Amino acid sequence: MDKTPTRERILVATAELFRRRGYAATGLKTVVARAGAPFGSLYHHFPGGKQQLAEEVIRTAGAFFQALVTAVYDEQATTEEAVRAVFTGAAATLEATDYQDACPIAAIALEVASTDDVLRRATADVFEQWTAALTERLGDRDRALAVLCALEGAFVLCRARRSTEPMHAAARLALAGL
Amino acid sequence: MDKTPTRERILVATAELFRRRGYAATGLKTVVARAGAPFGSLYHHFPGGKQQLAEEVIRTAGAFFQALVTAVYDEQATTEEAVRAVFTGAAATLEATDYQDACPIAAIALEVASTDDVLRRATADVFEQWTAALTERLGDRDRALAVLCALEGAFVLCRARRSTEPMHAAARLALAGL
Repeated sequence: MDKTPTRERILVATAELFRRRGYAATGLKTVVARAGAPFGSLYHHFPGGKQQLAEEVIRTAGAFFQALVTAVYDEQATTEEAVRAVFTGAAATLEATDYQDACPIAAIALEVASTDDVLRRATADVFEQWTAALTERLGDRDRALAVLCALEGAFVLCRARRSTEPMHAAARLALAGL
Repeated sequence: MDKTPTRERILVATAELFRRRGYAATGLKTVVARAGAPFGSLYHHFPGGKQQLAEEVIRTAGAFFQALVTAVYDEQATTEEAVRAVFTGAAATLEATDYQDACPIAAIALEVASTDDVLRRATADVFEQWTAALTERLGDRDRALAVLCALEGAFVLCRARRSTEPMHAAARLALAGL
């Protein structure tokens, strides 16, 4: 039996669903079924309902993804190897998960940008934290933003085309800009 | 009175809704209300329902956007000016539309990538056509893919952050890679 606390199981299940099918298409019944939690526990842990759950998922998934990516980055000896490792790692994850697991917040970011300002701000905060972490490493905010754009756009094209070709092309552009 | 044929009004209204709130959050009742069309006309013109409507919107919006962007591109004297004009134009559109109108298919592409293979293929076809058009102009497929990634990722970050800063950063990276 899964001994992970219910609240955490709900967050993990929601994060997976958001990443793979987005915000609007994720029903709360599917969330609790996948989390193996009773329906009532959702409103017990997240009295603000879907919006509160989504905000927490965006923020926690954002921090988790940042930790993961910076760990890969910081293991490398040079900036060039580090940037290459991040893109290569992203391509490997896409292939390993049948193009399901990419950026944890891009789908939801596009869905909520013009419809839910609380959630839009959460995605903006996450992108800002990622930009700050990368700026620290590349020594230049403009370059950090551009590399992040290339990575995010590659996720869109790779998932649509079920190919890692755009990721490798984006990596070469990111490296050319260093 | 709007004399545009009903079918076309439905396509235009759906395209706007998809661009701004995505696929799952767009209800067919909202579509017909915005198109000023009776509900029955939707299934008359699109017997395959929401999926058929979405596929046509993806393909027509993709072709329309491509015509728009290549027109901007081809007006410029040099490759550098052309690439800069595309990113500057994207930034201007984002500002002019309160960050609502960006890529016509990115939101839906991320939503359907793992859930609807008919629609995923439609988004893949559009991205492939854009890549071909840009490859023809830049003379290099790898570079074309990378520039498209940078542009698509910039749409995500700009809409989330309600700022054109990522678009300008992405433009500089795209220019550096030429």
